[in-house]
Amino acid sequence: MKIVILAALLPLLANSAALAQTNQPPADAKSASSNVPGVQFPKIDSGRCAYFRIVAPNAMNVSVSLPGGRGTKGDDGVWTVTTSPLAPGFHYYTITVDGVTVSDPASESYFGTGKMSSGIEVPSPGEDFYLPKDVPHSDIRAHSYSAKSTGLIRRCFVYTPPDYDTNLTARYPVLYLQHGMGEDARGWSTQGRVGFILDNLIAEGKARPMLVVMDDGGITPGAMGGPRSGGGPAFWDKFTQVLIEDIIPMIDATYRTIPDREHRALAGLSLGGTQTWQITQSHLDTFAHIGSFSAPFGLPEVPGGFNGLLGDPAGFAKQVNVLFVSVGSAEGGLNSGSGKFHKALEQAGIKHVYYESPGTAHEWQTWRRSLHEFAPLLFQTAQDGNQ
Amino acid sequence: MKIVILAALLPLLANSAALAQTNQPPADAKSASSNVPGVQFPKIDSGRCAYFRIVAPNAMNVSVSLPGGRGTKGDDGVWTVTTSPLAPGFHYYTITVDGVTVSDPASESYFGTGKMSSGIEVPSPGEDFYLPKDVPHSDIRAHSYSAKSTGLIRRCFVYTPPDYDTNLTARYPVLYLQHGMGEDARGWSTQGRVGFILDNLIAEGKARPMLVVMDDGGITPGAMGGPRSGGGPAFWDKFTQVLIEDIIPMIDATYRTIPDREHRALAGLSLGGTQTWQITQSHLDTFAHIGSFSAPFGLPEVPGGFNGLLGDPAGFAKQVNVLFVSVGSAEGGLNSGSGKFHKALEQAGIKHVYYESPGTAHEWQTWRRSLHEFAPLLFQTAQDGNQ
Repeated sequence: MKIVILAALLPLLANSAALAQTNQPPADAKSASSNVPGVQFPKIDSGRCAYFRIVAPNAMNVSVSLPGGRGTKGDDGVWTVTTSPLAPGFHYYTITVDGVTVSDPASESYFGTGKMSSGIEVPSPGEDFYLPKDVPHSDIRAHSYSAKSTGLIRRCFVYTPPDYDTNLTARYPVLYLQHGMGEDARGWSTQGRVGFILDNLIAEGKARPMLVVMDDGGITPGAMGGPRSGGGPAFWDKFTQVLIEDIIPMIDATYRTIPDREHRALAGLSLGGTQTWQITQSHLDTFAHIGSFSAPFGLPEVPGGFNGLLGDPAGFAKQVNVLFVSVGSAEGGLNSGSGKFHKALEQAGIKHVYYESPGTAHEWQTWRRSLHEFAPLLFQTAQDGNQ
Repeated sequence: MKIVILAALLPLLANSAALAQTNQPPADAKSASSNVPGVQFPKIDSGRCAYFRIVAPNAMNVSVSLPGGRGTKGDDGVWTVTTSPLAPGFHYYTITVDGVTVSDPASESYFGTGKMSSGIEVPSPGEDFYLPKDVPHSDIRAHSYSAKSTGLIRRCFVYTPPDYDTNLTARYPVLYLQHGMGEDARGWSTQGRVGFILDNLIAEGKARPMLVVMDDGGITPGAMGGPRSGGGPAFWDKFTQVLIEDIIPMIDATYRTIPDREHRALAGLSLGGTQTWQITQSHLDTFAHIGSFSAPFGLPEVPGGFNGLLGDPAGFAKQVNVLFVSVGSAEGGLNSGSGKFHKALEQAGIKHVYYESPGTAHEWQTWRRSLHEFAPLLFQTAQDGNQ
């Protein structure tokens, strides 16, 4: 039995032995933190270039779907890939072997771009707001529930702040936080690092302790981006129904929330940002805080949006405590849809916060930073004695 | 922007289109529940054969690491793989393309065999104890904490029963449950379905509400099976220290436990079963309930084990409330190390429970069933007024 079990690990060890014979990347290159335990490659150097080693003596073509990711075959059958400098933060990638696109077993996998993609975490020197620190930690809870509007058992993830289990009479405001297209409810807690971001902000006294609910924006469990969901109006309407009729009542019944609009926020990234606009424009009775990170389309008209409220700065400010719009500078910045929306809001005198993530594109580092800017603004003006 | 985002999903849709032109598996074949959303293949028929379709016109060789998994190339460049009948339950697998072993982006990935492996869930007709049902649901909480004995921030998973958040004065017994070699703390909650198994048992009144703590058996965060941990005595001792000095005190301080030996169990599968023997033999002051599922080695000597207590049936029964030993019939059954240990215990008159999972080998269906048999035995005789 001993031999059988150890044999399962042999391919990994064989890889390591083969790799030792190849040319090495610069001495400052370190194994990526997104590698599975004990695996050396991919490595990343101080210039943010990633180095891959793939043992494939019989393959004719090997590449990695990152900038500059074309493979070169060595005499020993090991393919070497050295990328161009990568943006700091998290990037999905896949490996293509002789025309077949697959995931890399050496890296953690994440549900993104509609499939289980490999991911690589590129360090961002001087930026540690999303890294684990020795502060009081939250729980991120996977919770299953029956959703009447779909007849299915769904699963959501709920961030409960560090004091939730000791401060048993306290009730908390809730941020509903949506993922992007081709992702699911897992995105924010894994790729997005919501736990470390909120734990660190709360420990510094910069954000109010809150719950964060992360559910699937698709109508089937976990579905988003696949043929079953699509992006049409029927899809939008169904998710709105699931959120309003199933998710929010379930959360209010299961966790110690403050169940009113003043203590409820809705935000999302990319398609989740578009959904946020769709839903909040007709549900200001439910949400008083709104965040949109890199929404690609569906932004409200100014001044017609929100049933004309965007033409009434005082009326809008009375109803919406926080309106937050963000985008990455490398995905258009002020020239993107979000940037133009910000300028229109500014011109119309609508109170809002605009944030542009420097040097990042339509990617998770933009959205981590957006959450880090957005969360401290939330639930600060609500008058209540519960916190 | 719209076009850029949709383009990320095109490879998937192109796959679907290509697949429609190939020969189809039997009409009763259904998409595996372990597929990512919206993906048709792999499919499984009523005879438990799995059907894979891999678009690889340029590849020379494609196979799937399941019985009978050799690929056949069609004229359209689509490789077809039809496996032999598979055992019910969960199986790790990988795809090999021209000699390169990779993960399948069409299936969910799981950390197992020391890497991110693809997994396929084969239905088991008439067996639904591990499937989601419309019963009150638990939370499975991911919790980070600083471990003094290693100087690292670690992450564990904690099952809290359905009434944990409403029955706020109740305190609960705790089962510490370990994964196998090449796996990590995620194994039991994903591959193992611990949440649905316990929720269903508790709803039926068959198991007492309890906490289940699932942590990494390796000493580095998430590490097990890689070069950094290994399997030697230093490794065992370090994990024992982490469990006794860090994990248990942290759990008792963070959750509403009943912090005594009568309300604490340790169990594990495969290498986690071996660790269970290692730890409990010298820590009966900490644990009064013991479970070992398919432990491959390290089983105690009879009668010398437990410091000679296995030679003293009355003394052993006084100290150990539950001793549970299980193994799959297809991994040796009574002829396995666990089976022989059971026979030796029987001969020595040591009270214990032996369970053999019919028709399954060294695999997750054996361990799901083992948990389903083991959990109802736990914490039933402890005298206390807390539940």
